[in-house]
Amino acid sequence: MIKEKGILFILSGPSGVGKGTVRKKLFEEETDLQYSISMTTRDRRPGEVDGVDYFYKTKEEFEQLIKDGQLLEYAQYVNNYYGTPRNYVEETLENGQDVFLEIEVQGALQVKENFPEGVFIFLFPPSLDELKNRIVSRGTESQELVLNRLKEARNEIEMMDAYDYVVVNDKVQHAVDKVKTIIKSEHLKRERIAKQYKKILEDGLS
Amino acid sequence: MIKEKGILFILSGPSGVGKGTVRKKLFEEETDLQYSISMTTRDRRPGEVDGVDYFYKTKEEFEQLIKDGQLLEYAQYVNNYYGTPRNYVEETLENGQDVFLEIEVQGALQVKENFPEGVFIFLFPPSLDELKNRIVSRGTESQELVLNRLKEARNEIEMMDAYDYVVVNDKVQHAVDKVKTIIKSEHLKRERIAKQYKKILEDGLS
Repeated sequence: MIKEKGILFILSGPSGVGKGTVRKKLFEEETDLQYSISMTTRDRRPGEVDGVDYFYKTKEEFEQLIKDGQLLEYAQYVNNYYGTPRNYVEETLENGQDVFLEIEVQGALQVKENFPEGVFIFLFPPSLDELKNRIVSRGTESQELVLNRLKEARNEIEMMDAYDYVVVNDKVQHAVDKVKTIIKSEHLKRERIAKQYKKILEDGLS
Repeated sequence: MIKEKGILFILSGPSGVGKGTVRKKLFEEETDLQYSISMTTRDRRPGEVDGVDYFYKTKEEFEQLIKDGQLLEYAQYVNNYYGTPRNYVEETLENGQDVFLEIEVQGALQVKENFPEGVFIFLFPPSLDELKNRIVSRGTESQELVLNRLKEARNEIEMMDAYDYVVVNDKVQHAVDKVKTIIKSEHLKRERIAKQYKKILEDGLS
């Protein structure tokens, strides 16, 4: 009866907070979500499928898309571009499906600029010690590198103001449940659905 | 660890939509909510307790409170005042407890003016026919009265723009679940909790 557009949800947060783990568990439980497929210039690896694992583009194509404002965010790693194609996201939303994007803080801020109508969720470490432990235990990094990482984490936490929700990742299942609650609740927002409701009733009551 | 204020939730919607039924079921399931206790000038009836059923005031006291801006909303029925006392609501919120108010549309709009930080939920009829049926089946009202009621309902639906969420009352349990989702999700809003989180991390990281 009521045709509603999908919503773009962005899960982000500081390095080491556990974004990937929360996203994986969420997708095991929530089959209605469409994971946002990235675009890349890196070579396709055996077994990977275009439009499933990534959208594969040449460097020239990618740079043209950047110029045309066709990427919600992008970054360069090891001479390759990675980004989120606007078209794919918008078409999926138009079909009434929610899109879910898990991304670093810098990327999330780019998306916020290019697609402010997204719903931005900040994943928060359960405690400072926990975040320190996770950063330290990642590898055999030097004291200096660990301190830099912590400084970066602090800067990323300052970015929290750009987000709509904050979810503590104390236990993965708790965090996943909270993200699911946010998804459901956002679909009840008046500004998303009021027009359709009003039309139905006015048609009937006039 | 994180001390958070309570939130005022307002459930409203057109006459006949089933606000009272949803509220009753919600309170059977949700024990953490505090129902907003009204203030009145009508006589206390046997068995009623001041501060539980109502706060009882004289007409003079009530009118002084109106002048002092101490009512989030009020109305007069059969020569008596009824209203929502600001103090009681604010103290309960300060104690970290959510307050829930079920009220007619006109009252909700008054609350919106006096307490815009509340979360306003509009309960929506499952269909126009259903709303007509509910209004008609209320009594042996004349054709003209029924038409007036429908016109009023239409006007009330126009007020939907003042609300934050819209919940369809197709089945009571569905509506109750959605209200519970909204309550949980609102507690994850960044603007409510970011300050405390930031303080914790900055204290630790500096």
